[in-house]
Amino acid sequence: MDAFVFKGHICDSIDRNHLRILEHHYLVCEDGRCKGVFPTLPAAYAAVPVEDFGDRLIIPGLIDLHLHAPQFSFRGLGMDMELLDWLNTHTFPEESKYRDLAYADLAYSQLTAHLIRSETTRACLFATVHVPATELLMEKLEQSGLITYVGKVNMNRNGPMYLIEPSTVEAVRQTRKWLSDTVGRFSRTKPIITPRFIPSCTDDLLYRLADLRAEFGVPVQSHLSENLGEIAWVKELVPTAKNYGDAYRKFGLLGGDYPCIMAHCVHSDALEMEYLKENGVFVAHSPESNMNIASGVAPVNRFLDYGIKVGLATDVAGGSHESMFKAMTHAIQASKLRWRLLDQSVAPLTFDTAFYLATRGGGAFFGKVGAFEEGFEMDALVLDDSTLDHPQPLSVRERLERFIYLGDERNLYAKVVGGRRLF
Amino acid sequence: MDAFVFKGHICDSIDRNHLRILEHHYLVCEDGRCKGVFPTLPAAYAAVPVEDFGDRLIIPGLIDLHLHAPQFSFRGLGMDMELLDWLNTHTFPEESKYRDLAYADLAYSQLTAHLIRSETTRACLFATVHVPATELLMEKLEQSGLITYVGKVNMNRNGPMYLIEPSTVEAVRQTRKWLSDTVGRFSRTKPIITPRFIPSCTDDLLYRLADLRAEFGVPVQSHLSENLGEIAWVKELVPTAKNYGDAYRKFGLLGGDYPCIMAHCVHSDALEMEYLKENGVFVAHSPESNMNIASGVAPVNRFLDYGIKVGLATDVAGGSHESMFKAMTHAIQASKLRWRLLDQSVAPLTFDTAFYLATRGGGAFFGKVGAFEEGFEMDALVLDDSTLDHPQPLSVRERLERFIYLGDERNLYAKVVGGRRLF
Repeated sequence: MDAFVFKGHICDSIDRNHLRILEHHYLVCEDGRCKGVFPTLPAAYAAVPVEDFGDRLIIPGLIDLHLHAPQFSFRGLGMDMELLDWLNTHTFPEESKYRDLAYADLAYSQLTAHLIRSETTRACLFATVHVPATELLMEKLEQSGLITYVGKVNMNRNGPMYLIEPSTVEAVRQTRKWLSDTVGRFSRTKPIITPRFIPSCTDDLLYRLADLRAEFGVPVQSHLSENLGEIAWVKELVPTAKNYGDAYRKFGLLGGDYPCIMAHCVHSDALEMEYLKENGVFVAHSPESNMNIASGVAPVNRFLDYGIKVGLATDVAGGSHESMFKAMTHAIQASKLRWRLLDQSVAPLTFDTAFYLATRGGGAFFGKVGAFEEGFEMDALVLDDSTLDHPQPLSVRERLERFIYLGDERNLYAKVVGGRRLF
Repeated sequence: MDAFVFKGHICDSIDRNHLRILEHHYLVCEDGRCKGVFPTLPAAYAAVPVEDFGDRLIIPGLIDLHLHAPQFSFRGLGMDMELLDWLNTHTFPEESKYRDLAYADLAYSQLTAHLIRSETTRACLFATVHVPATELLMEKLEQSGLITYVGKVNMNRNGPMYLIEPSTVEAVRQTRKWLSDTVGRFSRTKPIITPRFIPSCTDDLLYRLADLRAEFGVPVQSHLSENLGEIAWVKELVPTAKNYGDAYRKFGLLGGDYPCIMAHCVHSDALEMEYLKENGVFVAHSPESNMNIASGVAPVNRFLDYGIKVGLATDVAGGSHESMFKAMTHAIQASKLRWRLLDQSVAPLTFDTAFYLATRGGGAFFGKVGAFEEGFEMDALVLDDSTLDHPQPLSVRERLERFIYLGDERNLYAKVVGGRRLF
């Protein structure tokens, strides 16, 4: 039996409207899974080592449902543009550098080091079109102890010749090679089919990616309804589709009997929401990115009310930072401006809901992940807020709430991913 | 002659649309004022000690035009409310604690310590109604080396009995005592007349504050048009005023021949803009606060086009953090959502404009402050971004731009306020 017990103030989400806060409780982990939270340690675990974190908070690991590994290099840069200009000016030139494995090694080492010491325990990443660099990234992530899905990106049209895949045949050949190499190779790092977005992929490539998805039994991630110009473009490119989501659906890439993440969904209409719901798609809500490149704000509470699955994402480098604490504050702030400036029919996100999105919401993509219920995989963060000074007494709930505004990686005291201690 | 020279990459604003970046230049300070920026050191300064900061960036100090000192204790807390509820639930109970000088000592020591190590060199602060605690805050700030205006708050109606001033006579008596005590006492810390806002002060108190302002020759700060409920309330309270700004104007508290800061101005209409302009009022734009308590977003570029003076502010604790770097990113992000969700006639803020607001924009309230022009008072920050890793070469401009998204107080290498080195 590989087991440990943490003692501290245990905080997790019960559902989108309710936090559970259990002070000075015992959190038991056995073989990588949670055995429960207890006010006194059950006799069955009397022999298990207990680490007492005192007055510190223990929360589930945070799940970043969408970020671009090669874009970490230019996080915080070039934010004075909208999506399509930003892609052509900043993103594509930078991504082309990952043909050079030495460059990829340097850049991905930096990203991985940041993710290890961050509050993220699991993530779904886009890499680039390049198979060697994508496999290198997967090796680095496997070594890191994080649990991730990584996608070799597919794009064979509407991008610069120096970056895009030269043909559908070649794209499929490379993608098959990559899937064969990686689908069973790692324990914590898995491949995920990753068409960049509809404008980047010809119809035949999209159909073939759906075939590869089925052949290898892997999930899918892409972008959906981020920007109005992009949506209009997809309407031209796939005139038979009822909307952008329907285009993915026609090509067999919108979930259903397999897991699927669609980033953004800022402008999804009622019909697209129906497709998202009936296909069990996870929306990767990326609020900072949607502010930075002026896309808008997804109506998260409307999605949740309707029964759509939603997780939270940094979307580096549309988002400037890998911090999921910052993603939580941005989600709350963006939702308040959406409510004030656009539409008072969708309530702003509360702290409780933002916490849910970053833990259980995105965690569900990985299975039983994102809370300290019995049987859940054990991702945990120990928060030390002792440097965030205050003159008055604060409740544990208050300390948790302010932590997302004031805390950063300096305040992470311990981190567990899938039962393994990273620090 | 008290002089020093800094060498490094000198970055400041020329105007709201143009940065000036001079690599490996010399910045000369004499008797607290800038003597200019030079590619080679002029012979006249050959004897002055030069500190070479190598590849680091040197920028003007950042100016926080509006924050609430007693609210620092609950920064990041209670953000799920709008203004008037938030005042009653969180703000007023906390502010009442500053009657206790021991509590004020602890809380203001924490705030001052944070401000010293922050990027803020000058600030305009609200204290509370309490004269002893306000004077204690002023003493601490004077010791810190920061340059500040501090206001004893006036409020004698529409607040809880445990906090508000019991009568106009008593409010005036206390305010006069405080002004007499402090108007000439410090070299870096000055009093500023501070009616909380119109709903908090009776008409007669507002008239008397205008008299005290003239008698002591001090500036004024208050809040204006932050929230729609507040604006409707002022319309009821001062029915003869054409708008909220006009109410201050009638009472003699909206600038004109003396300096005046009005925080927020989120919902100022054309007539209010005219009053702001013709009276030379500084708008303290507080973007994070305006997101957090769902007030909206001020049309900053419209204000600037019209000729209104605008500076930037954290508005702690409507804003969660004392960081002016964060205020800059929030200003940009909020302006993009305003553009996308509400009104495409006002362009989003660029990085250049946000930098201008945080330096020259607010600096002008303090005189010749906020740039490295000859004759300007010397506030400077040396930025060390060496921990913000990146795999590719970056220009100095790119390094500056990403710094506001990625940097924090750890990346501040040196700080000068009014010619004095703080660290």
